[in-house]
Amino acid sequence: MLKEMEQQFLRYIKKMMSYNEAIQLMYWDMRTGAPKKGLEQRAEVVGILSQEMFKMSISEEMAAYIAKLSPSHVQTELSAVVQCALAECRKEYERNKKIPVEEYKEYVVLQSKAESVWEEAKEKSDFAMFRPYLERLVEFNQKFIEYWGYQGHPYNTLLDLYEPGITVELLDQVFAKLRERMVPLVQAVAAAEHKPDTSFLFQKFPKEKQRAFSLELLRELGYDFSAGRLDETVHPFAIGLNPGDVRITTRYDEHDFRTALFGTIHECGHAIYEQNIAKELVGTPLCTGTSMGIHESQSLFYENFIGRHYSYWKRHYPLLQKYAPEQFASITLDEFYRAVNEAKPSLIRIEADELTYSLHIMIRYEIEKELFNGSVAVDDLPELWNDKYEEYLGIRPDSDASGILQDVHWSGGSFGYFPSYALGYMYAAQFKHAMLKDLPHFDDLLEKGDMLPIRSWLTEKVHCFGKTKKPLDILQEATGEELNVDYLIQYLEDKYRAIYQL
Amino acid sequence: MLKEMEQQFLRYIKKMMSYNEAIQLMYWDMRTGAPKKGLEQRAEVVGILSQEMFKMSISEEMAAYIAKLSPSHVQTELSAVVQCALAECRKEYERNKKIPVEEYKEYVVLQSKAESVWEEAKEKSDFAMFRPYLERLVEFNQKFIEYWGYQGHPYNTLLDLYEPGITVELLDQVFAKLRERMVPLVQAVAAAEHKPDTSFLFQKFPKEKQRAFSLELLRELGYDFSAGRLDETVHPFAIGLNPGDVRITTRYDEHDFRTALFGTIHECGHAIYEQNIAKELVGTPLCTGTSMGIHESQSLFYENFIGRHYSYWKRHYPLLQKYAPEQFASITLDEFYRAVNEAKPSLIRIEADELTYSLHIMIRYEIEKELFNGSVAVDDLPELWNDKYEEYLGIRPDSDASGILQDVHWSGGSFGYFPSYALGYMYAAQFKHAMLKDLPHFDDLLEKGDMLPIRSWLTEKVHCFGKTKKPLDILQEATGEELNVDYLIQYLEDKYRAIYQL
Repeated sequence: MLKEMEQQFLRYIKKMMSYNEAIQLMYWDMRTGAPKKGLEQRAEVVGILSQEMFKMSISEEMAAYIAKLSPSHVQTELSAVVQCALAECRKEYERNKKIPVEEYKEYVVLQSKAESVWEEAKEKSDFAMFRPYLERLVEFNQKFIEYWGYQGHPYNTLLDLYEPGITVELLDQVFAKLRERMVPLVQAVAAAEHKPDTSFLFQKFPKEKQRAFSLELLRELGYDFSAGRLDETVHPFAIGLNPGDVRITTRYDEHDFRTALFGTIHECGHAIYEQNIAKELVGTPLCTGTSMGIHESQSLFYENFIGRHYSYWKRHYPLLQKYAPEQFASITLDEFYRAVNEAKPSLIRIEADELTYSLHIMIRYEIEKELFNGSVAVDDLPELWNDKYEEYLGIRPDSDASGILQDVHWSGGSFGYFPSYALGYMYAAQFKHAMLKDLPHFDDLLEKGDMLPIRSWLTEKVHCFGKTKKPLDILQEATGEELNVDYLIQYLEDKYRAIYQL
Repeated sequence: MLKEMEQQFLRYIKKMMSYNEAIQLMYWDMRTGAPKKGLEQRAEVVGILSQEMFKMSISEEMAAYIAKLSPSHVQTELSAVVQCALAECRKEYERNKKIPVEEYKEYVVLQSKAESVWEEAKEKSDFAMFRPYLERLVEFNQKFIEYWGYQGHPYNTLLDLYEPGITVELLDQVFAKLRERMVPLVQAVAAAEHKPDTSFLFQKFPKEKQRAFSLELLRELGYDFSAGRLDETVHPFAIGLNPGDVRITTRYDEHDFRTALFGTIHECGHAIYEQNIAKELVGTPLCTGTSMGIHESQSLFYENFIGRHYSYWKRHYPLLQKYAPEQFASITLDEFYRAVNEAKPSLIRIEADELTYSLHIMIRYEIEKELFNGSVAVDDLPELWNDKYEEYLGIRPDSDASGILQDVHWSGGSFGYFPSYALGYMYAAQFKHAMLKDLPHFDDLLEKGDMLPIRSWLTEKVHCFGKTKKPLDILQEATGEELNVDYLIQYLEDKYRAIYQL
């Protein structure tokens, strides 16, 4: 009887996950070459399938599974996977059920309206256009926090959506440390005399050659092409349909090869994560990365700790020179390395380097936190934003478009998402530190192109678990300690002091 | 109240069609580049969504719509589209409901098993391996015919699955006429002295150049690339996701450009049909071709009546010569035209030319008919098959692989499908005859590349209706008469007597 119900539950979530896989494929397709004239209808199809999944997540049938399978004497009879999957479904159920249906519908309409208004407002660099929508989005989220409840700071409930276990208390602490050490370092780098020459980066590098070079790197990094493919898009992403089908997308800029090169390695890190989730989790909501932050730690590990490492280029620079001899023939390895690791304060987050990136995040974090404890009004945001950029990065946006309006997140109602990016950096540095104990010759591995031990380490400690473990548990078990921002600080200080000869 | 139910019904079928669009996209994806390792899981997802659609087609909710919207005093209040959609759903409902659930499940298992056995049997050229499966497939279909009922010949019920309105009585008549005139013509062509030289066809023609040439032709033919795309696959097909997204696939043989060239034009004909279905039918089961035969008439019209027409090449041959100068520089237009219209008896249907193709179909039709009136046993099929090939085409298969085992259709339980191919030829010739009354300068249009009047004629008379009209009604209304095989006969006799100087 119990076994029968367990099986029914598995079939039920498998159906939900099947809808999800179809939706993901449609998403990929819409962004990689679906014909324009079919997009409107395709969006409707995605909407209908998404709604179906949502209905299933709060249906009476789901309620019955939760009620009957949750008691602790029943749990002990269930497989570990079913226990975890049930917990995941229960969390989702409770979250979705607490919002009155009518209110949620209103919110969905607002989201979609707000996104298109934001797009126009950004184009016109006019925050006033977007302001009333942002105000309503914040109000809705404030109400949701009340429905969902919170411990400590109200913003904790939003953080939990993206990074379960992370709290304002913890972030305040790590960000304070990070800020204390990074702000002066960024200033020192900005003032450094010994700056890299980057002029050669912008020569023409034909797309087809960039692609061929990327493919060679991806193969060596261990991205499995029999479980993936590389396509072009406007805003690159990686997407996992199932562990046997995890696709990467990229964008080629023929006058700045870094866009595709480091972008592809970044997405490769995301993809290798999803390709190596344990097969037994397929068909459950556990078959995905455990959190935004852990996901980002993997992409950043590949992009920065491998892809921008000196030893990596010691191996690959001669190959790159073959692909683009005119561009690189007269440039030494050291000059190349310094150029692709250039750091400088900038206004736009998505173009920021690894040294300054976290400061962009802290600014957003502080603003969101204040929004949700009511200590700042939406009206005051542009000024507050610009002041913080001046304080942290030493530069001041001169328009809403390059300031408060630059990110899409808020227009979709995503508050509490940004910290995940910075956490990704911290996790990655902490993983790297722990990895060095097991793989002390890390640099040699990069130089030899022997990537398997590195990938296996990450798979064993991170990838394989999918969503069966919480982010901070993965971090603790992989590294033997709690979140520790010191490793990121140490890494950035060592690296950038050397590059800028500080 | 009635309006409300009409709206509910429309939402219900829209959901079904949304599942269908997702399934179609997954199908396309699996055949154009989905990573190997994800295919097994993808097939499960397709299975789950298909099952969901099937359940919806026979649900109590569907039964209620049918019961409440079918009475004639209600019908008059419904929109024309809803009336047609309801009729379509009712037909499907009644068909699916009549088969006992357990029996249907058994049949689905048998189908899938039979397809893989067929594949192996074909490879080993061993009909004995496949025979027990074919016997059971026939038995199942015989039972289904009993459940569904039939008028006249039992096989009529199977024909109705693919070509509503077509009966054994009608086919016997047109096939008899066709056979009487084609068999001697094929013999005369085979014996002709004046045969085209085809040796130059098989030179190397690089894939990229073939593709570029195909793209030029597709654009001129009026295939809308903002509502479609061209990809590679193993077994080419066209697929309509919605009228704004109708994709073509092709296969390049670098040593026989005809595969991609005529294959692409063929699929283009299918695609132009689906691109031009009236937008108001989107989201209903009417938004597709009305039958296999009418669909095939459109692909054959483009492939043969346009793509193998002398005037078409008068325009395009110089361009082709530019794409492959070494191959065609010393070949005249007339030599080229005759070579790509070569006709000769062959064993394999899918490689047959337009002159002999219908004879391949007649053989299958006669065999299927006899299977379903019980006058022949499965055991006797290989012999019967080979005898008929000798009689109709003058050649005898020397293996099961090149004979009875060559087609996939029966292994999937598709009986009654084959006649659609031959009907496609007859419809196409009849459309062409009627079109000439409106567009007497048809040949000039091809020579000038002025394709719009031709496409518009087909859209107005055929495409726009989707499935709102039955195939024979479309034929009657477009041509002013019933199915008349004389036009096909006349076309083939004129064309091949000229080419072979008979």
